[in-house]
Amino acid sequence: MTTIGHLINGETYTDNGRTQDVFNPATGEVSKQVALASKETVEEAIAAAQAAFPAWRNMPVGKRSAIMFKFKALLEANADKICELIGDEHGKICHDAAGELQRGIEVIEYACGAGEFLKGEHSKNVGPNIDSWSEFQPLGVVAGITPFNFPAMVPLWMYPMAIACGNTFVLKPSERDPSSTLFIAQLFKEAGLPDGVMNVVNGDKEAVDTLLHDKRVQAVSFVGSTDIAEYIYTTATANGKRCQALGGAKNHAIVMPDADMDNAVNQLLGAAFGSSGERCMALSVAVAVGDNAADALIEKMKVGMAPLKVGEAKVKENDFGPLITRESQERVVGYIDSAEKDGATVVVDGRKPTVDGFENGFFVGATLIDNVTPEMDSYKNEIFGPVLQVIRAETMEEAMQLINDHEYGNGTCIFTRDGAAARYFSDNIQVGMVGINVPLPVPVSYHSFGGWKRSLFGDLYAYGPDSVRFYTRRKTITQRWPSTGVKEGVSFSFPS
Amino acid sequence: MTTIGHLINGETYTDNGRTQDVFNPATGEVSKQVALASKETVEEAIAAAQAAFPAWRNMPVGKRSAIMFKFKALLEANADKICELIGDEHGKICHDAAGELQRGIEVIEYACGAGEFLKGEHSKNVGPNIDSWSEFQPLGVVAGITPFNFPAMVPLWMYPMAIACGNTFVLKPSERDPSSTLFIAQLFKEAGLPDGVMNVVNGDKEAVDTLLHDKRVQAVSFVGSTDIAEYIYTTATANGKRCQALGGAKNHAIVMPDADMDNAVNQLLGAAFGSSGERCMALSVAVAVGDNAADALIEKMKVGMAPLKVGEAKVKENDFGPLITRESQERVVGYIDSAEKDGATVVVDGRKPTVDGFENGFFVGATLIDNVTPEMDSYKNEIFGPVLQVIRAETMEEAMQLINDHEYGNGTCIFTRDGAAARYFSDNIQVGMVGINVPLPVPVSYHSFGGWKRSLFGDLYAYGPDSVRFYTRRKTITQRWPSTGVKEGVSFSFPS
Amino acid sequence: MTTIGHLINGETYTDNGRTQDVFNPATGEVSKQVALASKETVEEAIAAAQAAFPAWRNMPVGKRSAIMFKFKALLEANADKICELIGDEHGKICHDAAGELQRGIEVIEYACGAGEFLKGEHSKNVGPNIDSWSEFQPLGVVAGITPFNFPAMVPLWMYPMAIACGNTFVLKPSERDPSSTLFIAQLFKEAGLPDGVMNVVNGDKEAVDTLLHDKRVQAVSFVGSTDIAEYIYTTATANGKRCQALGGAKNHAIVMPDADMDNAVNQLLGAAFGSSGERCMALSVAVAVGDNAADALIEKMKVGMAPLKVGEAKVKENDFGPLITRESQERVVGYIDSAEKDGATVVVDGRKPTVDGFENGFFVGATLIDNVTPEMDSYKNEIFGPVLQVIRAETMEEAMQLINDHEYGNGTCIFTRDGAAARYFSDNIQVGMVGINVPLPVPVSYHSFGGWKRSLFGDLYAYGPDSVRFYTRRKTITQRWPSTGVKEGVSFSFPS
Amino acid sequence: MTTIGHLINGETYTDNGRTQDVFNPATGEVSKQVALASKETVEEAIAAAQAAFPAWRNMPVGKRSAIMFKFKALLEANADKICELIGDEHGKICHDAAGELQRGIEVIEYACGAGEFLKGEHSKNVGPNIDSWSEFQPLGVVAGITPFNFPAMVPLWMYPMAIACGNTFVLKPSERDPSSTLFIAQLFKEAGLPDGVMNVVNGDKEAVDTLLHDKRVQAVSFVGSTDIAEYIYTTATANGKRCQALGGAKNHAIVMPDADMDNAVNQLLGAAFGSSGERCMALSVAVAVGDNAADALIEKMKVGMAPLKVGEAKVKENDFGPLITRESQERVVGYIDSAEKDGATVVVDGRKPTVDGFENGFFVGATLIDNVTPEMDSYKNEIFGPVLQVIRAETMEEAMQLINDHEYGNGTCIFTRDGAAARYFSDNIQVGMVGINVPLPVPVSYHSFGGWKRSLFGDLYAYGPDSVRFYTRRKTITQRWPSTGVKEGVSFSFPS
Repeated sequence: MTTIGHLINGETYTDNGRTQDVFNPATGEVSKQVALASKETVEEAIAAAQAAFPAWRNMPVGKRSAIMFKFKALLEANADKICELIGDEHGKICHDAAGELQRGIEVIEYACGAGEFLKGEHSKNVGPNIDSWSEFQPLGVVAGITPFNFPAMVPLWMYPMAIACGNTFVLKPSERDPSSTLFIAQLFKEAGLPDGVMNVVNGDKEAVDTLLHDKRVQAVSFVGSTDIAEYIYTTATANGKRCQALGGAKNHAIVMPDADMDNAVNQLLGAAFGSSGERCMALSVAVAVGDNAADALIEKMKVGMAPLKVGEAKVKENDFGPLITRESQERVVGYIDSAEKDGATVVVDGRKPTVDGFENGFFVGATLIDNVTPEMDSYKNEIFGPVLQVIRAETMEEAMQLINDHEYGNGTCIFTRDGAAARYFSDNIQVGMVGINVPLPVPVSYHSFGGWKRSLFGDLYAYGPDSVRFYTRRKTITQRWPSTGVKEGVSFSFPS
Repeated sequence: MTTIGHLINGETYTDNGRTQDVFNPATGEVSKQVALASKETVEEAIAAAQAAFPAWRNMPVGKRSAIMFKFKALLEANADKICELIGDEHGKICHDAAGELQRGIEVIEYACGAGEFLKGEHSKNVGPNIDSWSEFQPLGVVAGITPFNFPAMVPLWMYPMAIACGNTFVLKPSERDPSSTLFIAQLFKEAGLPDGVMNVVNGDKEAVDTLLHDKRVQAVSFVGSTDIAEYIYTTATANGKRCQALGGAKNHAIVMPDADMDNAVNQLLGAAFGSSGERCMALSVAVAVGDNAADALIEKMKVGMAPLKVGEAKVKENDFGPLITRESQERVVGYIDSAEKDGATVVVDGRKPTVDGFENGFFVGATLIDNVTPEMDSYKNEIFGPVLQVIRAETMEEAMQLINDHEYGNGTCIFTRDGAAARYFSDNIQVGMVGINVPLPVPVSYHSFGGWKRSLFGDLYAYGPDSVRFYTRRKTITQRWPSTGVKEGVSFSFPS
Repeated sequence: MTTIGHLINGETYTDNGRTQDVFNPATGEVSKQVALASKETVEEAIAAAQAAFPAWRNMPVGKRSAIMFKFKALLEANADKICELIGDEHGKICHDAAGELQRGIEVIEYACGAGEFLKGEHSKNVGPNIDSWSEFQPLGVVAGITPFNFPAMVPLWMYPMAIACGNTFVLKPSERDPSSTLFIAQLFKEAGLPDGVMNVVNGDKEAVDTLLHDKRVQAVSFVGSTDIAEYIYTTATANGKRCQALGGAKNHAIVMPDADMDNAVNQLLGAAFGSSGERCMALSVAVAVGDNAADALIEKMKVGMAPLKVGEAKVKENDFGPLITRESQERVVGYIDSAEKDGATVVVDGRKPTVDGFENGFFVGATLIDNVTPEMDSYKNEIFGPVLQVIRAETMEEAMQLINDHEYGNGTCIFTRDGAAARYFSDNIQVGMVGINVPLPVPVSYHSFGGWKRSLFGDLYAYGPDSVRFYTRRKTITQRWPSTGVKEGVSFSFPS
Repeated sequence: MTTIGHLINGETYTDNGRTQDVFNPATGEVSKQVALASKETVEEAIAAAQAAFPAWRNMPVGKRSAIMFKFKALLEANADKICELIGDEHGKICHDAAGELQRGIEVIEYACGAGEFLKGEHSKNVGPNIDSWSEFQPLGVVAGITPFNFPAMVPLWMYPMAIACGNTFVLKPSERDPSSTLFIAQLFKEAGLPDGVMNVVNGDKEAVDTLLHDKRVQAVSFVGSTDIAEYIYTTATANGKRCQALGGAKNHAIVMPDADMDNAVNQLLGAAFGSSGERCMALSVAVAVGDNAADALIEKMKVGMAPLKVGEAKVKENDFGPLITRESQERVVGYIDSAEKDGATVVVDGRKPTVDGFENGFFVGATLIDNVTPEMDSYKNEIFGPVLQVIRAETMEEAMQLINDHEYGNGTCIFTRDGAAARYFSDNIQVGMVGINVPLPVPVSYHSFGGWKRSLFGDLYAYGPDSVRFYTRRKTITQRWPSTGVKEGVSFSFPS
């Protein structure tokens, strides 16, 4: 059985230490092993990154960008292979994997523009014959720690930007679906990236803690669940590192009575059930304003959900695939049970889906629950499964209050035709990414991704302009040249 | 005896609790008392700020700026009074206090331009008929904690920017010289600032810890010593707040053999001894490259130091004043003693200055020490007094290595005529603020202030563009309007 | 009788040459004379500006800004006097003059932020050890030529920005109401502006042509009618100068059937009749979509117009004042006549207003005309008077086509509640300044003012960020320092 | 014999009208014919561009960028073929053609970042609940007219940026070497560009004048000689179009006595003789400050020039090739003759080069002339050949005055080690592109290219950020949503 190793200083490496099972979630069977890096292995990766830093930071920006352009081209050429690797280990349907990859590639495209986004600010005559300017210099070695749900995209949110800014990188991806991540990193080397600039270590808490405590690591980017995000952030900052740690979510859509209901339902189907709801931007709660809107929503959702197909990754007619692990499947079913027990109405029940030939896969079908209330466990926590819960509110203010009171503030959406409602919502909602008739308002690569409240710890967001500031350190130079005689000609006999 | 209180919700307030002595450092006598806020008092200030927030954040930007313009004008009209208050409690000579105040006013001037710096990014057609834009929304209640050495300037680095961005503020200034800070805040109210937007609480650790733990406080800006900065940063971030914490410094000037030596000496005199060296940007170490340069430097410094006058604040012929406390005076003298004991040469000795009529003041005279080496205590620690230490290096690389190896990385300077030396220095030195023939390279108000290494904890710097990002939270809106019939005219009978 | 002269090199000056009458438009009587500068006088002003340039461009940005701050304060302190001067010669009601002045002051406020907006772009490592940056350097002598309708505001759109950027200026204001313009320029001198930086010459075509042909003038800003704008632009550019020339307008409001009609009518009253319609942003055409909307609009406008009061400037209860000249009055009445003759319906007729005690003033009352069609002269031309014409369209597309077919493209507005309609409108309308439920969408001072089509000749707009680019010239420096031995230490014996 | 046609609406097209000879400049023989477009053919191209505009401007930015990425890749894949086409018709040596192409590709790379550079400015709360933002919308049909000396690069300065901004394009390249230009445009189609977005018409004055007078053309970019540039600019602007017209140059290098002379000479060799001096950034004048510097420069230049090889394009050992035409060759020789006649010293004489096997080619060898003075014809005019003239100045001020007095202000350079001299030079020289020890300071693709004085007519420069403003028109939207009842819930019965 294959053991997936690390990429350190340009070399694939397995340290023959601990390993962990990697599953095929559609069959429920173990398909590979992944090496779990020891402290020493991680330190070796850090050392490689540290050694590669001086040359990389001094490489002219255009030369760094040239490698980015090649990296993008290689990812496009290898897209099918990457999507297959994602499907095998994550279970995501191929078209969904392709979408994920495309979003990742778009960050590389943005990273190709380093010449533009690394520009500093230059001020003439801040004093008599005194000029001053600010440069944005790279930090050094930067680490990234990423989750299972987007094994291609989330790492690509981080390291292309960090590396384009002149840093070197150590990535610890999820140990549940590590193959696509590693393969992509190898393509970066193939694109001409010098050895040591990009390193990948697979591992668990030992690897993470090594990264968090090593003095050479200057900054840590993390995406995962909120509890871990908080641990990462607190530990990294206490160790003098920069940190941005993105956590969980509970994304609400408000459905206003004036919404184009067919459009809203179409959007909700994909946003709630796509990728089995294992997305930090999945819409998991719909708040219908007024019973008319709620009733219409429920009826149309039932119709829309009927033809949805759950199944294995490589069948492109499938709408979504299995959950990542047996434990995930059980957690999701458990939340449906608890909602039902707490008095909610399970309108469409996905607890026992039929997936012929994949009876042991980690599947849960699309589930719709009505009459959910804020005190239910299924509402308070992130389910991270294909479950859409509906809450009925009497007014838009009440609906917004629900969102503002929730622990998370990642994404949200309003369905309305009304300019005033949309503006009031986007202005006052305590959420970082807001959609107006757009259910998954993931910012494009030239903006930045980040939630509010306990969905993000840190000042600066992922990718886009914020990531440039996160991965660089401002240096301000103030310069005055005292007269030297050269200009005045007194030093003409100066020996050259 | 006067007791200096707090400013909460527009009202001056003393809670009749604990107080602490405020000294006149030139005479060594207690001149006033300052109230030390209890937890409840601080919470009242936070509550006032919280209550003032919604209206303030919704006030059009131009109206907020109008108050800033008036605040600036009031500070200029009251400059003499402010400088006198600073002189009485801090001991800083009036021209130096005026300089400090001017630097603070310049931040207000920058804050007048909120219309420009709060602009978000707008993108058309990120998808078919989909637009997206990012807004920079205020955080809510923000706290500032500031040191004794710039009672006017450092608070003004913070709250004008925070408030211009739409936040409300609670400031805890230094309890050693609180009067000018409080007076300035009152002028802000006089300029038309709504009550509660700006609050001042005097206090000690109890006040600080209340600010660090209260959930309503969204962010903390701090300037002080490195140990406290680290505590503030770790505590604030562990409590889910943004934090920028600026700490200590040990700023080196490299004197190259090709420097204009007269110019270098002139600059060093002010940079080392101005404000008794109680500046985080003071130059406290000169590294001379080559013995010729070192010898020339020492000789010219001796000449330049001879006429320097130390004395009380209000005599404008004085060059610098007393230290802030008896303890400070003793610490500085202690470091000179230790340098001498460790083998350094005290070339000019300020340990026993004569200040007629102020025999009990906390004075130390300008001191020059040669042959300092990196392992001496006086080199490793921040002295924060009127002491310039000289180290002799053989090469520019050796001089730079000293700087890069030091714990701090706030400011630095090189004296040279040579373009290549200047560029190599500014590129490779591990320091945030770099001067080329400029001894105190404090960035102007439209750049940002911040050091590297243990001189600053956090991602974003004080004032200027960085402070805008620190005091705002990015929100990205993605918008699509589904067809509604209004444009197409099918709803013409729509009841208006 | 007073003769209004020029301001050249800090001195008020009358060259005893030709003069022209200045009227009080409320009484119809001549109140003053204005000097008309000869070619020699204009050249003297240009020479003064040229001489003042080198010192002004080298003054540190902060010092230049300090003068701007004082200038703003002086304008606020002298606001009543300025508004009275405007009222006497232009006839504008005092509250309207105050509004104009405020808009002008806001440009000065923006100009106070020169430190921020003059920042150039700095790029590290564009090649091996090669840095490059762009500076925005001032042009030299810049000229402005401004119209009668905003004697305070439009000049302030230009010269504060030009001067903040480091240029010196020669202004030729309208000869019909020159006093407030000249007085404001004198306040700039009082604020500390060095002589020669700002010069004012009153005059006519001789002055204009001198400015357009003098080689020392680097750029020309113009606001006036389209024919003159085109002449100015063509002549200035043929003479190698930069030019931005803003011309006429015919601003349409689309009133959609779903509009909040009461709100729309309230907005239209001020936008159509304020300042007698003598504004390039006045709404002079309302396009109602559907007869229901049109009928409702007409009825509500009649009610809203009934209490409008026309009269002299100093009575603050008046809504608007006289037109600027007898010829203007006749032109406006002529257009009403022609519309009537062409078949339009004069619903409210202002051709013979009663203004007790001012029977010879140049007054026209608020006029509403229904059933206007595109081929009428009154539609094709700019009326520049208190006349609102209503066109009835069947669809939004038809309404937009009218606007896009018109020669002018300055401002426009849509009244609707519908997000989709607003977005379609703002995206596709061929107009530079677009309001959504905002009738006079004059950009704030930190954006830029400019129309499309024949409303503006030139690439860059007035005030705001565009004006910075207009009033500066990009210079790009690329720098590499070859090794010199200083850094390497081989030149240690270099004689200092 | 091949006839080179046009590319209109995606189709190659020859209209069987007038043609003109295309030469092989190395042999002096006619190698091809180029079609000269009639007015009708040009209008067809404009019509195609006009028709393609609406769909192209509405295509999401990311989709437009995707085509840019593919275009870049295709240019790299076809680089050899392109360089061969350039060599055959222009005579440029293959490595020089490759350099030109690379610079052009870099503009495409910048154009890939349209998401970033097209961002507008968004302002919240410019008034109570009023937001305002500026968009940069494309203009429509844009034309480019380009010179023979960079048949690949200069067109690529223009149309990738124009098209990335959402415009459509008609290019009229030089009729002397049209093949590479046309081939590159065909690759753009191959990359997926919709037909009509990019069109190429070959032609002469008839084509140019058609572009300048057609109302559908919104803007014209031109690079060529100054007289034509002035004609283009005056005509285009008089016809209401935007125009940027780049003209001739006379680029001076100041050689200071403290310069690293070996380095200076190495740089000058390439900058003066590369591409036979047929570059608008070629250094054609060296001003040596002091006779010591002048004598050293002349001696070292003689040594450096000895091994230079002139010859045909495909031999990569050659340093430069023939001039473009017989007339060019005669013009250059004529200027050398005139300099000699006027008293200058021809130190190295390239008037009769030996190029075996290419006796009829349009070759001139590298030529060095000493003792040139400002009144000579060879100094006043642009030679555009492989001739370096040396002027001797006594001071840096005198050297700078020469540059500032010259008609042109494109590029310049100073060779010095001295920070003060470099800063004084870059600050005060009246030239748009300044090198400090960099002989050809062509700005990188993320800055902008443009000279001062009669080297450029227009406000905005080529490529980089300036080109974004040139190829877009600002539109400012101001938006307020009046309450509609939807938010408040009064419209709950609204029929959806």
